[in-house]
Amino acid sequence: MMFYHLVAELVLTRMQFLFSFDAAEELKDSISNKNHELVLVRGMNLVDEIWGDARPKPPKEPTRVHDIKYAGIDVPSKLSFIRSHLAENECDAVVISMLDEVAWLLNMRGSDVPHSPVFYSYLIVEVSTATLFVDSNKVSEDVLEHLEKAGVKLKPYEAIVSEVERLAEKCAKLWLDSSSVNAAIVTAFKSSCDKQMKKKGKAGKKVEKEASSDEPTSVENGTVNAVYNVSPVTLAKSVKNEAEIEGMKNSHLRDAAALAEFWCWLEEEVCKSVPLTEVQVAEKLLEFRKKQDGFIETSFDTISGYGANGAIIHYRPTPEDCSSVGSDNLFLLDSGAQYIDGTTDITRTVHFGEPSPRQKECFTRVLQGHIALDQAVFPERTPGFVLDVLARTSLWKIGLDYRHGTGHGVGAALNVHEGPQSISYRYGNLTALQKGMIVSNEPGYYEDNSFGIRIENLLLIKELNLANSFGGISYLGFERLTFVPIQSKLIDVSLLSPSEINWVNDYHEEVWDKVSPLLSGATRDWLWKNTRPLLDVTH
Amino acid sequence: MMFYHLVAELVLTRMQFLFSFDAAEELKDSISNKNHELVLVRGMNLVDEIWGDARPKPPKEPTRVHDIKYAGIDVPSKLSFIRSHLAENECDAVVISMLDEVAWLLNMRGSDVPHSPVFYSYLIVEVSTATLFVDSNKVSEDVLEHLEKAGVKLKPYEAIVSEVERLAEKCAKLWLDSSSVNAAIVTAFKSSCDKQMKKKGKAGKKVEKEASSDEPTSVENGTVNAVYNVSPVTLAKSVKNEAEIEGMKNSHLRDAAALAEFWCWLEEEVCKSVPLTEVQVAEKLLEFRKKQDGFIETSFDTISGYGANGAIIHYRPTPEDCSSVGSDNLFLLDSGAQYIDGTTDITRTVHFGEPSPRQKECFTRVLQGHIALDQAVFPERTPGFVLDVLARTSLWKIGLDYRHGTGHGVGAALNVHEGPQSISYRYGNLTALQKGMIVSNEPGYYEDNSFGIRIENLLLIKELNLANSFGGISYLGFERLTFVPIQSKLIDVSLLSPSEINWVNDYHEEVWDKVSPLLSGATRDWLWKNTRPLLDVTH
Repeated sequence: MMFYHLVAELVLTRMQFLFSFDAAEELKDSISNKNHELVLVRGMNLVDEIWGDARPKPPKEPTRVHDIKYAGIDVPSKLSFIRSHLAENECDAVVISMLDEVAWLLNMRGSDVPHSPVFYSYLIVEVSTATLFVDSNKVSEDVLEHLEKAGVKLKPYEAIVSEVERLAEKCAKLWLDSSSVNAAIVTAFKSSCDKQMKKKGKAGKKVEKEASSDEPTSVENGTVNAVYNVSPVTLAKSVKNEAEIEGMKNSHLRDAAALAEFWCWLEEEVCKSVPLTEVQVAEKLLEFRKKQDGFIETSFDTISGYGANGAIIHYRPTPEDCSSVGSDNLFLLDSGAQYIDGTTDITRTVHFGEPSPRQKECFTRVLQGHIALDQAVFPERTPGFVLDVLARTSLWKIGLDYRHGTGHGVGAALNVHEGPQSISYRYGNLTALQKGMIVSNEPGYYEDNSFGIRIENLLLIKELNLANSFGGISYLGFERLTFVPIQSKLIDVSLLSPSEINWVNDYHEEVWDKVSPLLSGATRDWLWKNTRPLLDVTH
Repeated sequence: MMFYHLVAELVLTRMQFLFSFDAAEELKDSISNKNHELVLVRGMNLVDEIWGDARPKPPKEPTRVHDIKYAGIDVPSKLSFIRSHLAENECDAVVISMLDEVAWLLNMRGSDVPHSPVFYSYLIVEVSTATLFVDSNKVSEDVLEHLEKAGVKLKPYEAIVSEVERLAEKCAKLWLDSSSVNAAIVTAFKSSCDKQMKKKGKAGKKVEKEASSDEPTSVENGTVNAVYNVSPVTLAKSVKNEAEIEGMKNSHLRDAAALAEFWCWLEEEVCKSVPLTEVQVAEKLLEFRKKQDGFIETSFDTISGYGANGAIIHYRPTPEDCSSVGSDNLFLLDSGAQYIDGTTDITRTVHFGEPSPRQKECFTRVLQGHIALDQAVFPERTPGFVLDVLARTSLWKIGLDYRHGTGHGVGAALNVHEGPQSISYRYGNLTALQKGMIVSNEPGYYEDNSFGIRIENLLLIKELNLANSFGGISYLGFERLTFVPIQSKLIDVSLLSPSEINWVNDYHEEVWDKVSPLLSGATRDWLWKNTRPLLDVTH
């Protein structure tokens, strides 16, 4: 799936809750450059006034415990890990406001946000306590017991600001990820710190700590007593443990079974010239997925694009205005699911009739990029952007390219798009790819007003056991999680090298071996037909 | 050749002439962090005191005119180009202190610095004048006439500081490349500006310009009235014109002929077990090169490394302490020449006996990296570091790597190492590779205490005429300048893809076609034998 950013805070009441501190600062700077001032209002805002009673109520969906057999690590262990980071950074507390980070850290899931199993909340982890700020109506007996066992207290969702002020009053040093924590929290903390400072001593540059306090903190004159760092949860969450990996693998096989059923069905319908819109096709896919164990919901809005619609990278068909899927052009389908044990995201492009040589050439070039990235081996500490070029060289050779990144991180039974890693032609993200991370591999090519091509698998980063390890470091590579056939009809075999042909054949053999046991009847036959080796026509 | 940096200023008298302004600032910061102060002394320095009379005199080598048939663009045109940049940046003058930039801009060459055809000098280009600061003894009648025709005045080398002070006095706005202009010049300009400012008015933040001056400049209170930008010559020099490209191509063919003679000779000598040291081999290579038209000198100290010495990346053999070249191990030879029309830089690795399977595997992996980069196609605006990975993936696949960049810029009858472009695993250099630039392609592998491998050609960046141009932009690729056989004996053909085999065969065919007309007798036979197609053993 392409790069969407969830703006989960958008239903909150006060404007400054809607912007991260960094974003608000940026806005403030831009505005002050024009000799205006950004005023953070606390009591009310115009958007609320305009909404009036029509404003939707915040969602009240229940939360649930994410079973330890899927989470892999219990909450006390995760809290200990966070606390060791607090100690290392000489901080007293960290405010976690990214919803997927709260969910991951507490082994909880919710359904407040479509496609993402998260719930509205904040979490403050202190050296000896942890407090979840959440609407108590969402917390069942089970969840409460789970939290109590882990030593996590509950407070109302709205209490976050006063709690942050309380921390400021006791001169706690706070860890804030200013790229995600909203401006309201940082501002509240900052002004409380300032007040505290003024109360304690106006002369000195540094204020003495309270005699009773043992924490190694100090309030700088006029500055907030905080460490602005990436949240300690971000990287920990991205590096999957054994149980999460197993859940991702298992859910991907069930998802593959659903997709095999779907593609088998669709091929037949289109051959019979049954009129089906892009939306109807997406709905049918959902039906097949719903039959799979542990299915919860789609992991994003399905991108179902026939012909020219496939060239619109973030296309989202609507029932009122969408095309029928036919056999005259390419059909691009980018979809994914949330299962109890994992999250999937897969794109396939197919043609139910006779693809043009141009379409085959473009498809094959995209496939070559997909294979080159899939097969990459790289030393530890390599940022994702270094590998991005591997997915593009085959297209560049004929003057083609695509205008999106090649890979994003994926959560384990969590958000389908997560950081901190990525594989992109933008050079900004220096995060090293690490063992246990999951990334998508999704090069594409889009011919405006004509067709779109994308081939996407999810990949797990693993450590390789090679003959050498130059520099005494680890070398990493990818393990595929996605097992759905790539349409052979679209491959111009004469463009492939022997090793690329082997890749396709090996992949299809693996698809058959792993997915056929889950299938029967016509679908099994379909899988058999669609995993036959390519004929090596050139060598 | 690997990355050496010329520190050409090292023989100057006063310490602050030895550091670029940026380097001095960095030093100042580091020192002040330890509560010390960096004092820039102007009158004398301790190093001069210690040298006493033993200090070598500055070189007095004559300069010469670099013929327009090699330079391609005359000096007035180049000066106009610089002046248009001055106007764009609202500057009154630029101080050029990089020796290769002065040489390029004035179509002059010298021999004050070994391996680099440059001469000690500074150049100030103003809106209507240009002044070369150089020892007048180095300037012959020819050169004087050449400079006069271009409207370039001469001043003594030492007059640079007083000239910069004069510019400050008339409130000129200076363009300074602080990464290359030395601290003495910047400091002199700065303090003159300050003095000027104090004299003119102490109250205002800005000082009025002199009524007589038309230039759009102003002296900021306490700051130097300068624009710190990369020199306008840097990029212009790196993008070669037609004449420079022709000179580079021609000189590379003559160099290839000298190398063919050399390799033919060396192979025979080693087979006859004639004892030859690494230094003697390098001297013999120089003899062969000297016979070529337009040869001037080597373009760097030859790296002649047999066996384990080849694994020392910047190895430089000395007559007293070097190995003999035998037939039991690999021999790495990295060398280059300055010709009247061009500059060369080539590395080949050979084995005169029976290479081990390990050596063949490593050599073949390096060759695959070399081919992948050579064959790269990429959109305009791509920085070199994006392509670096292409030269490494084949090595990474078996856990090997090399600890140097893959490519550096090369001057046309100028320094063998020039910027601003590079192809490196370090991500700092964002300079886009551009049509007309020349880069080296030199992946390697070094097994400590055992052997070293490097394969280096020079490449010209050219615009490609492809079937598509996605995004409406240009796509670029490489044209090889270097035509010397790559030893087939060292290639494990079973590791190569058909297209890699074709690359080797096509390259060798091109070597034969281009270089054989320059050869006769045994050398021509040697070239024939060493350009035969690889047997395709696998496909």
